[in-house]
Amino acid sequence: MTQVQQIVLAKRPVGDVTLDCFREESANLAEPADGQILVRSRFLSLDPYMRPRMTELRSYTPPFELGKPLTGGSVGEVLESRNPRFAKGDVVIGMLNWATHTLHDGKGLRKIEPDTVPLPAHLGVLGMPSFTAWYGMKHICKPKAGETVFVSAATGAVGQVAGQLAKLAGARVVGCAGDDEKCLWAVREAGYDACFNHRTERDLGAVLDKLCPQGIDADFENVGGKIFHAVFERLNNFARVAFCGAIAEYQDTQPMAGPPKMFTIIQRRLTIQGYVVSDHVALMGDFVNEVGGLLKAGKLRARETVVDGLAKAPHAFLGLLRGENFGKLVVKVA
Amino acid sequence: MTQVQQIVLAKRPVGDVTLDCFREESANLAEPADGQILVRSRFLSLDPYMRPRMTELRSYTPPFELGKPLTGGSVGEVLESRNPRFAKGDVVIGMLNWATHTLHDGKGLRKIEPDTVPLPAHLGVLGMPSFTAWYGMKHICKPKAGETVFVSAATGAVGQVAGQLAKLAGARVVGCAGDDEKCLWAVREAGYDACFNHRTERDLGAVLDKLCPQGIDADFENVGGKIFHAVFERLNNFARVAFCGAIAEYQDTQPMAGPPKMFTIIQRRLTIQGYVVSDHVALMGDFVNEVGGLLKAGKLRARETVVDGLAKAPHAFLGLLRGENFGKLVVKVA
Repeated sequence: MTQVQQIVLAKRPVGDVTLDCFREESANLAEPADGQILVRSRFLSLDPYMRPRMTELRSYTPPFELGKPLTGGSVGEVLESRNPRFAKGDVVIGMLNWATHTLHDGKGLRKIEPDTVPLPAHLGVLGMPSFTAWYGMKHICKPKAGETVFVSAATGAVGQVAGQLAKLAGARVVGCAGDDEKCLWAVREAGYDACFNHRTERDLGAVLDKLCPQGIDADFENVGGKIFHAVFERLNNFARVAFCGAIAEYQDTQPMAGPPKMFTIIQRRLTIQGYVVSDHVALMGDFVNEVGGLLKAGKLRARETVVDGLAKAPHAFLGLLRGENFGKLVVKVA
Repeated sequence: MTQVQQIVLAKRPVGDVTLDCFREESANLAEPADGQILVRSRFLSLDPYMRPRMTELRSYTPPFELGKPLTGGSVGEVLESRNPRFAKGDVVIGMLNWATHTLHDGKGLRKIEPDTVPLPAHLGVLGMPSFTAWYGMKHICKPKAGETVFVSAATGAVGQVAGQLAKLAGARVVGCAGDDEKCLWAVREAGYDACFNHRTERDLGAVLDKLCPQGIDADFENVGGKIFHAVFERLNNFARVAFCGAIAEYQDTQPMAGPPKMFTIIQRRLTIQGYVVSDHVALMGDFVNEVGGLLKAGKLRARETVVDGLAKAPHAFLGLLRGENFGKLVVKVA
C-alpha cells in the first residue's frame, strides 16, 4: 500500500474556475494487481483543454469525475510493475493523475529516453502542445513564403512553436499576447515580425490592420473570442484557420456568439478546420523527427514555467486560464 | 445600331430589395466594333448571389454599377460577329446583360450545342448551380454510405442536385424547404429521406433531432442564418460543411452573428469550407461528364421555373430572395 497525495475535482465550476473546485487529499493506493504498474509522477502538464473537462459538456475528452483525481499529461517513473511492457525504473509519458503516484494499467503510456532533453520538454516542445502546433501549421495553415500568418496566444505552449514554424516557412508572422514582456520575447527570441498586447490595445481591428497590412492568409487559432472575430474579418481569399483552442470561451456561462457575417466564409473561400491532435498520433514520428531536428539545430526556442509542488497545481491552473504563465506550464510534482 | 430593352440598377438596396432598385429602359447599341459580337439573349438565370452584387460590399464578384444593366448567366444567340471565335448563329453561354441584346467582347463566353438538352438546362442542371452542388458534395461533403447529409434549400437550383448526389452516394439525406409542396417533391421525386418546411416548423432543433437521429455528418449549406445555427449544433465529429450560399443573410442590414460556441468546431473536429464554383472551372469537364451521364440515365430530376419576359425579371428576383421559385429560376428573354 502506498500513501499518496492527490488533487480531486471537488465541484464543477460555473464560469471562472475557483480554488474550491479542487481538494487536496491523501489516499492509499493498493499494491499493483496483475497488469498494473505504480508510477511516481515527476512532472504534470497543465493545459487549457482541462477546463472543458471540468464541466459535464460533451467534448473530445470525457469529463473529469467528481471526487476523483483530475488527470493530465505527465512524465513519471515506474516504481513497481506487474505489466510485462514496463520495468521498474522506466520513465513513461501519458495521462496520470494529479497525484504523487498513480496506479495504472499501462494503456496509453509510452516509455521515453530520459536523457535526450530535460524531462519537462516531453510535455512541451517535444510533446502534445508542440505536436498541436506542428499539425495545425503543417497540415492546415500551410503557410507559403510571403503570406501573413496570425498566431493568437503567441507565446503560449502551442503558439510559440506555431509562430516559429510559420516563420521558418517564410511567412510574415504576427501574434498577440497578454503582456508586454511576452510580446518582446515573441519578437526578439521567437522571431515574430510583430506581436501586440491584446489587453492594452483598445481597438483590435486597428492594430491588426496596422500589423497585417496585406490581410491574413492563415490564422492559427488557439484562443477564440473577440480576437478571433477581429481576425476573421481580416482573412484573405483562400485563408485557412487551424482551430485548436478557444480559451476565451471556456469560462463563459452564456455561450458566446460566433463572428458576424458567416457569408464571409463564402466570399473569401475560407477553410476553418477544428482539430484535436490526439486524432493524429500516427504522425507523431514525423513530428518528433522534424521538430526534434529543429531543436537540435538550435532553430526553435521554447519558454516554460515550472511550478514547484503538486499542491500549487490548482492555483497555477487558474493563472493559466488568465494567461499568467509564460510558455509551457508544468508542475514539478516530485 | 440596335434598339434594345434592358434593366439597369436604379439604386442600391438597403435591406429587402424593392422593385424601384431596377429600371427598365430602352437603349441603342452601337454596331459591333472589331473583336465584338452582338448577342441576343434567350434565357437569363436569376441566382441569389446577385443580391450581394447589388450592394457595394467587397465580394467574390464585383458590384453591379449604378445606372448600368445588371448582368447574369445567360444563353444567347450570336446575331453579328466581328470576333473570329464566334459566327453568326452560334449559341453561347456566359455573362450577358439583363437585356434583350448585349454587345460583348466574347471573353468568358463559350459555345454550346443547342440540341442536346433544352436551353435553360445549361443554366441549371448542366450549369453553374448544378456545378456548385457537384463540387461541394464531391469535394467537400464527401458523404459515405450510411452518413446523414443535410441540405438547406432542398429544392433550390443548387440544393435539388446536391441532395440527389448525396443520395446516390448512399447517405441518408434530409432537407428543408419553404413550403409543403416542395417538401413533397423533395421526398417523392428527388429521393430525400425527409424534408421539412422551415417556415411552419416552430422548433428547428427539435425537427432536426427527429429527422437526423444520428446527428449530421455533412451539411450542404446554401442558406445560412438560423437554419445553419440549428444544424451546426447537431454536427457530428469530423463533419464537413460545404458553404456556398447565405441567402438568409443577404438582406440583413445588421450583420447577423455566427452560431454560438465556436468551440464546437474543435470539439467535433469540424471542417467548414466556403467556396465559389467559378474558382474551379478546371473541373467543369468532370462535372459535365458525371452529371450529364446521370441525367441521360434518368437518375437525376430537376425542377425549374421559367418566367416569360425580361420585364418580369425584377419581380421574379424578389420572389427568389423570398424563396418563391421552385427549382432553378430562369427568365425567358425572347
